[in-house]
Amino acid sequence: MTLVKAYGAHAADKPLEAMTISRRQPGPHDVQIDILYCGVCHSDLHQVRSQWEGTLYPCVPGHEIVGTVSAVGAHVQNVRVGDTVGVGCLVDSCQHCDPCNDGLEQYCEHGFTGTYNFPTPDAPGHTLGGYSQQIVVKENFVLKITHPAEQLAAVAPLLCAGITTYSPLRHWQAGPGKKVGIVGIGGLGHMGIKLAHAMGAHTVAFTTSESKRQDALALGADEVVVSRNAEEMAHHARSFDFILNTVAASHNLDDYISLLALNGTLCLVGAPDHSHPSPNVFNLIFGRRSIAGSLIGGIAETQEMLDFCAEKGIVSDIEMIRAQQIDQAYERMLNNDVKYRFVIDIASMAE
Amino acid sequence: MTLVKAYGAHAADKPLEAMTISRRQPGPHDVQIDILYCGVCHSDLHQVRSQWEGTLYPCVPGHEIVGTVSAVGAHVQNVRVGDTVGVGCLVDSCQHCDPCNDGLEQYCEHGFTGTYNFPTPDAPGHTLGGYSQQIVVKENFVLKITHPAEQLAAVAPLLCAGITTYSPLRHWQAGPGKKVGIVGIGGLGHMGIKLAHAMGAHTVAFTTSESKRQDALALGADEVVVSRNAEEMAHHARSFDFILNTVAASHNLDDYISLLALNGTLCLVGAPDHSHPSPNVFNLIFGRRSIAGSLIGGIAETQEMLDFCAEKGIVSDIEMIRAQQIDQAYERMLNNDVKYRFVIDIASMAE
Repeated sequence: MTLVKAYGAHAADKPLEAMTISRRQPGPHDVQIDILYCGVCHSDLHQVRSQWEGTLYPCVPGHEIVGTVSAVGAHVQNVRVGDTVGVGCLVDSCQHCDPCNDGLEQYCEHGFTGTYNFPTPDAPGHTLGGYSQQIVVKENFVLKITHPAEQLAAVAPLLCAGITTYSPLRHWQAGPGKKVGIVGIGGLGHMGIKLAHAMGAHTVAFTTSESKRQDALALGADEVVVSRNAEEMAHHARSFDFILNTVAASHNLDDYISLLALNGTLCLVGAPDHSHPSPNVFNLIFGRRSIAGSLIGGIAETQEMLDFCAEKGIVSDIEMIRAQQIDQAYERMLNNDVKYRFVIDIASMAE
Repeated sequence: MTLVKAYGAHAADKPLEAMTISRRQPGPHDVQIDILYCGVCHSDLHQVRSQWEGTLYPCVPGHEIVGTVSAVGAHVQNVRVGDTVGVGCLVDSCQHCDPCNDGLEQYCEHGFTGTYNFPTPDAPGHTLGGYSQQIVVKENFVLKITHPAEQLAAVAPLLCAGITTYSPLRHWQAGPGKKVGIVGIGGLGHMGIKLAHAMGAHTVAFTTSESKRQDALALGADEVVVSRNAEEMAHHARSFDFILNTVAASHNLDDYISLLALNGTLCLVGAPDHSHPSPNVFNLIFGRRSIAGSLIGGIAETQEMLDFCAEKGIVSDIEMIRAQQIDQAYERMLNNDVKYRFVIDIASMAE
């Protein structure tokens, strides 16, 4: 057992603070990672503030982890000390159900183990995430990173925001000849724009705010639609093969379903606190359209995404913060005051 | 122009009554059909009573038509006088958009022409349906029927109830090795059970009523689930590849979405008067599940369905009525008092 510094909360109404946590000694199949950077995901805030059910304290969030391997177990085969690696939202799964066998560990029939707030034999009985100096993870859940060293902080958000958008774009075959919409230009949406564009799809960004038009074009959107402009929306009626909706706040889905072509799909990757208005069924029937959901991605696909991004030179747009600034960053995130992802410089924890 | 007898309504609050309507002389590409039987679809009732917007009067419903060809135009190639034919929900479409070119006339980008209540150059300016002695339809929208003569009345409902369930079952690949649910055992649902079973899928019928269990088994269901029994429902959690939901009344879709396996789809073919409760988005995300809609079927697929049914000996379960009984049949339909489709014996109009 190793004691390391971390940032977490002792209760839902307490700010995040420095704490000491323990990490297990690496077992035969384990990889010990000295964490360099950890991205700040909206889920971290929901979990640590107990806005979702079942938060276990102390809660150390963080599932967009990049670091350097500092030790490996005896049976570890594909990772070496000194490798630059990543850990995303998953640190374990049953490894023998159909989805696991198909590389879809995120849909494990026996329930995956998330990087934080999931049961584990390790102290304190639930997993603790990447807002910490070190983490120990089974080799099968460790990703290889080949981006250049100067990009590593900006790689961290690929581990959640990247794969959450990459996986549905691939599943619904975004690519040349396809018209793809990305709703919302935040942590997830800005990655969706970059990825859909890099896959070769005609990429249309939707935003509620005229002020984000130039930003969206700079991210790689071929077109930008201000969703509050009914005329602009109507211009795209029945034309999209796929729309990836990254907005979790409750809103009218029909506005986007009407933009889908025959057989088109609107995929939701955020779950709203309050239900969306019930979608109009006629709108689905007249066009054989679908509303779907998608959850992060499996390990093999996450590796594929990282390799794709390294090849295409894709990283997240980030603002680096020190660990001491996390609470402040949460407040700014709630005000959408970030372009587009905060990343914690874990070195700041040693100070 | 030919004058023929029909049954229709002059206003939303008037009963259906005998009337005389005109049919155009067959043009070069037209087929004139002496109608033998016409099924009674729930849509007929909605339209004639103006429960949907835009009913045009006089309204003659009916889009499950079986008859005998009595004349053909000079350029008609594949239909001959004396042939037994059918007409479903469509009598025209643009014939040059992408969906039309793909045999998906029901999704025509310029709007298909429905068998009743759609604009037409013929008097009275809107189409009049199959509750009549004769209809004249373009050859491209005429279906061939090869069932034996004694089954023709029971073939009529295939033209709407049959294709409305067949098309999504085929699109979402119901067949051997697939577990398929059919929700609702009425006009559509009873066809869905027969067709899914005939396609080789493991077919599970859902009903709210224990009393329909034996009926559903007799129709071909491999299993029957009483949807009000939470334990019975839970037993099937996360196991269905596809669920076809034929129930139009507002109900909780989450109960069925929870039964879908990874990548499963719940397809709606009925639109509710009042919205369904808004589906839970987490339920879609954790399982990459979809909610979709589907509208009848194209002409080529309708022919495929008729041929499939003829080969498998499939027809609808019907109760024959005389034209004079239509209003009474509507009331019984509203009380779900029909197994499972009323069919009008058009010969009764001559009396």
